[in-house]
Amino acid sequence: MSGSADQKNKRAVLRPVADMGEEKVRVLYDFEGVAENGELTIYTDEILTIVRKDVGEGWWEGQNDRGESGYFPSAYVEDSGSGGAVTDTPPTTDSSYYNGSQDTSATTYTPESASATDQWNDPSTQYQNTAATDPWDQGVANTAYSSSYGQDSWGDTATAQAGGQDEGWDDDWDDDGASTGSSTATTPTSPTTKTMSNDASKSGGTMRKSLNRFSMFVKSGGEAFILGTTKSAGSTKNRVCVTETQEGGWSWGPNPAPYKVTVADPKKDSKLKGLKSFITYQLTPDNTNQTVSRRYKHFDWLYERLIEKFTTIAVPPLPEKQVTGRYEENFVEGRRQQLQLWVDRMSCHPVVAQSEVFQFFLQSPSDKTWKDGKRRAEKDPLVGGAFFHTVEAPQARLEAARIDTNMENFNKFQKSMDDSVKNLLAVAAESTKKHMGGFKREYQRVGEAFTKLGTTFDLDKKPSSKPLTTALWKTGAAYFEIGKMFEEQPQHDLNALMLKVDEYKGILSTFPDILQSMKGTMTKVRDCQRMVVEGKMSGDELEEVGARADVITYTTLAEIQHFHEMRVVDFKAIAQHFLTEQIEFYGKIKATLEESLKNYENV
Amino acid sequence: MSGSADQKNKRAVLRPVADMGEEKVRVLYDFEGVAENGELTIYTDEILTIVRKDVGEGWWEGQNDRGESGYFPSAYVEDSGSGGAVTDTPPTTDSSYYNGSQDTSATTYTPESASATDQWNDPSTQYQNTAATDPWDQGVANTAYSSSYGQDSWGDTATAQAGGQDEGWDDDWDDDGASTGSSTATTPTSPTTKTMSNDASKSGGTMRKSLNRFSMFVKSGGEAFILGTTKSAGSTKNRVCVTETQEGGWSWGPNPAPYKVTVADPKKDSKLKGLKSFITYQLTPDNTNQTVSRRYKHFDWLYERLIEKFTTIAVPPLPEKQVTGRYEENFVEGRRQQLQLWVDRMSCHPVVAQSEVFQFFLQSPSDKTWKDGKRRAEKDPLVGGAFFHTVEAPQARLEAARIDTNMENFNKFQKSMDDSVKNLLAVAAESTKKHMGGFKREYQRVGEAFTKLGTTFDLDKKPSSKPLTTALWKTGAAYFEIGKMFEEQPQHDLNALMLKVDEYKGILSTFPDILQSMKGTMTKVRDCQRMVVEGKMSGDELEEVGARADVITYTTLAEIQHFHEMRVVDFKAIAQHFLTEQIEFYGKIKATLEESLKNYENV
Repeated sequence: MSGSADQKNKRAVLRPVADMGEEKVRVLYDFEGVAENGELTIYTDEILTIVRKDVGEGWWEGQNDRGESGYFPSAYVEDSGSGGAVTDTPPTTDSSYYNGSQDTSATTYTPESASATDQWNDPSTQYQNTAATDPWDQGVANTAYSSSYGQDSWGDTATAQAGGQDEGWDDDWDDDGASTGSSTATTPTSPTTKTMSNDASKSGGTMRKSLNRFSMFVKSGGEAFILGTTKSAGSTKNRVCVTETQEGGWSWGPNPAPYKVTVADPKKDSKLKGLKSFITYQLTPDNTNQTVSRRYKHFDWLYERLIEKFTTIAVPPLPEKQVTGRYEENFVEGRRQQLQLWVDRMSCHPVVAQSEVFQFFLQSPSDKTWKDGKRRAEKDPLVGGAFFHTVEAPQARLEAARIDTNMENFNKFQKSMDDSVKNLLAVAAESTKKHMGGFKREYQRVGEAFTKLGTTFDLDKKPSSKPLTTALWKTGAAYFEIGKMFEEQPQHDLNALMLKVDEYKGILSTFPDILQSMKGTMTKVRDCQRMVVEGKMSGDELEEVGARADVITYTTLAEIQHFHEMRVVDFKAIAQHFLTEQIEFYGKIKATLEESLKNYENV
Repeated sequence: MSGSADQKNKRAVLRPVADMGEEKVRVLYDFEGVAENGELTIYTDEILTIVRKDVGEGWWEGQNDRGESGYFPSAYVEDSGSGGAVTDTPPTTDSSYYNGSQDTSATTYTPESASATDQWNDPSTQYQNTAATDPWDQGVANTAYSSSYGQDSWGDTATAQAGGQDEGWDDDWDDDGASTGSSTATTPTSPTTKTMSNDASKSGGTMRKSLNRFSMFVKSGGEAFILGTTKSAGSTKNRVCVTETQEGGWSWGPNPAPYKVTVADPKKDSKLKGLKSFITYQLTPDNTNQTVSRRYKHFDWLYERLIEKFTTIAVPPLPEKQVTGRYEENFVEGRRQQLQLWVDRMSCHPVVAQSEVFQFFLQSPSDKTWKDGKRRAEKDPLVGGAFFHTVEAPQARLEAARIDTNMENFNKFQKSMDDSVKNLLAVAAESTKKHMGGFKREYQRVGEAFTKLGTTFDLDKKPSSKPLTTALWKTGAAYFEIGKMFEEQPQHDLNALMLKVDEYKGILSTFPDILQSMKGTMTKVRDCQRMVVEGKMSGDELEEVGARADVITYTTLAEIQHFHEMRVVDFKAIAQHFLTEQIEFYGKIKATLEESLKNYENV
């Protein structure tokens, strides 16, 4: 799959739009744009033609006189027509947002200030936002580009492309590829899919980061929903509930018919007379008891549907791509375990578990009915911003200050947990290595020392010497066995711990985007409040905007609540399993030594 | 203490004797002697005046025309009077001895052949014999020198010197010094005293080794005893028994009144108004229940008496000398433990425990009566070769072939056990380091990871989150505690194991000398057999020589038997103690984790 080729095509298709704007601006400072992120390099005193100003977060889109177009920071230009235009819409940095008193300090936009005052998105703990040099990020940048045409045209594009490439479903995609073929235009692979293998500490610079952030919110359609430009569902078939909890928070309404799904029995399968081979996993939901067979690419397709539809739900990334050795038994079983976790995670989510697309994935047989369902899912209008029309949230308006506190707390929590989880994984990996290496060697060396002593004592052939010799040999064997137990123990405890904790690393990686959307929501509301002050929006309109923003906020709060509930359940289970296995392990060592000690009784 | 100054004095005193010989020899090959060992550097065609030919093991003593005298290999010279004299007394290499058929191959002595054919004394596992560059060895060489005057004059010399230096007992000796002041002339400190701190692998060359070997046997008086030139005791007061065992071996007669001695309560004491300070240890034998106070130098004096008296008994070296930090608590307690082991070892030896000198050491108060007893012990005529007069051994004559097999087997055993014991010590030391370092760190790192996760979870202040947070903290604390347990565990198991096994390293280091004496005994008997063939000795005389040699052999066999009996008892105890502590350790880990697991029940 060549992602960059797709991106170029897309850009070419969209290019004519760039000619529609006529406003001109003069460049005040040089700015070197990153072409891969759709940025435009601009030079002082150059005149640019504005394509769009509603890009957000201090960015505009423009075209230079050589016909090149792209994003650039609006603070770097002055409006050649009306001089005041640029500073009238300062980039909304976080601190200016949540601390009204600081609003004035943020009137001049610099890339540095945007980064330095950012409370929610510290580059050091960001996942995808900072990995801008990663090819995945190009997809994000270009999505922003294409999705800027609005939600309406977007659905159609998807349909048109899907029609032409439908048989791609069963064609020669790489089974492990995370690309999505027919749906590339509407749902480029999320950067979060790759986070497990990417180094999150690489920073790609604050500019592109800002751009990416912007794109998350706009892309998701959240802005369109708040502004009331998305279509309402009308149907009440798949209503989603958010209700208040006893602790005073909000949670998703429970799934009235919960179910579990088994992911089992990975099989190597092939088609085109063996030309293409792949692994299928057998999924059996316990509510239907009908087994369906799915390939990795089917999971990938589902993943794309879910992140497209549920922008405020933490859909963890699928297990990471692996190019070599993908038919090896260990890899296949490891992936099966990860897919089982992923399916468990989704099927215990009250909203996802009840969604049409997830149930379709779990239940549709792999025949013609699949193709129909697949096409229908791709045409689902209630995705992104439009999904919020299906939410039944409390009518009570939320206090901005309370949301801020909630979000800031969760942002802190998420970052801290990300640190803790990564630390735990690193420690567990190191401990696994020690168990299989140093620990094992040390115990076996002790065993060898006893064995060697026994072998020396065996040189004395007197009957009175023999029992001790035998006992020492058995002690040697016991420590050798204990060494082997150390080697094997990580399979029983640390591996399971790492598998589950690694899943949480993936879950945590989804929250920066969710929080970013949340921030975009808050920003938009405050933009509108200012417009009311400036007389550009009516109070009634603002009231509607606020109510719609609250729906997004309620879903975010419900998702955070769901996360915390699952976290407690999961980490209780993780720790209990780990400790139980450890107790058994040390009990086995003790028993082995006790057995060995008995041999000295008759010496 | 200046050992080398003493040696020079001694040599000066003995010098006139060198002028008494008149026989001349011509040097055939250059030989570079080591002056410190009393060797003489000789040059081809030089004429030497023979001082003594009865040095043994291929060595003669001579003087060159510059007035310098010393030992040189007899094979390097030809008798300028009668040409055949040199090869008539070939150096007795081991293989020539125990394999009669090879006798002819050993008629030409070279230093290399002496070393290469040595079966019992492989340089790689030798203790003191190979450490010829060690100043201790100088003492041995000079003893050979002085003791060559025979047993009778030797006792007198000791008395004369002891009289002059008697107050040395309480004078300013270094408390940790292993030197022996008044008794230097008769009993230079054995090289084995230093083996624990010396690197046994250093080789000082085969020449000096041979010289040392020779000196062990002659020095001990074994040869004199075999030849019937030592005085019989007459007294039956301290008869020592060797009896046959049920397994067909021979053992020491048991101690009819066994006792134990406690070495306790080390105290820092001083005299000369605080000018001299030292540590005293309080010894309490359980048969008298009277506590006596002893300093290290008293132990050292006793040690010298014991190795002087019992040449076929394994008297282990005292704990090693330590110059710095000798008043530090750890060192004092460590030494106390080692002295306790040493006293235990001696008091459980049926011969040593019943000996007058050992009982004197355990019972005499530190006053005037001590000085008398000390002088009496130093004058004991029944030491070395004379001791064997006190032995009641079986009358049955031993078969030479059987002795050879026995000795060869034990030689193999001793070398193999020396390897095993050193290996076990090295492994235990390494394991101790791992427990206190890597293991501890690894468990505490796991603990920290759980604690850190708990601290993250504590950011969620909801009551539903708290129990998990607390449980995780407790798990963190549990692993931190387990880390500490790993750090402390060596104090409970490995340290005790090392202390006891290290004692065995010391015991094993005494056997090469004992086996060497045994070999000297066998050699002498065979020399006499040849003399009978040559008509130089009567059959009756040979019969007496053989019977006396058997007494030495019986004691050696009894000592080997005693060693094996103690070895089984001791290593059973070592292994049982180690395993019992290990079982308790892993039980404690298990219990700690079980306690931690309980905290998750209410999550």
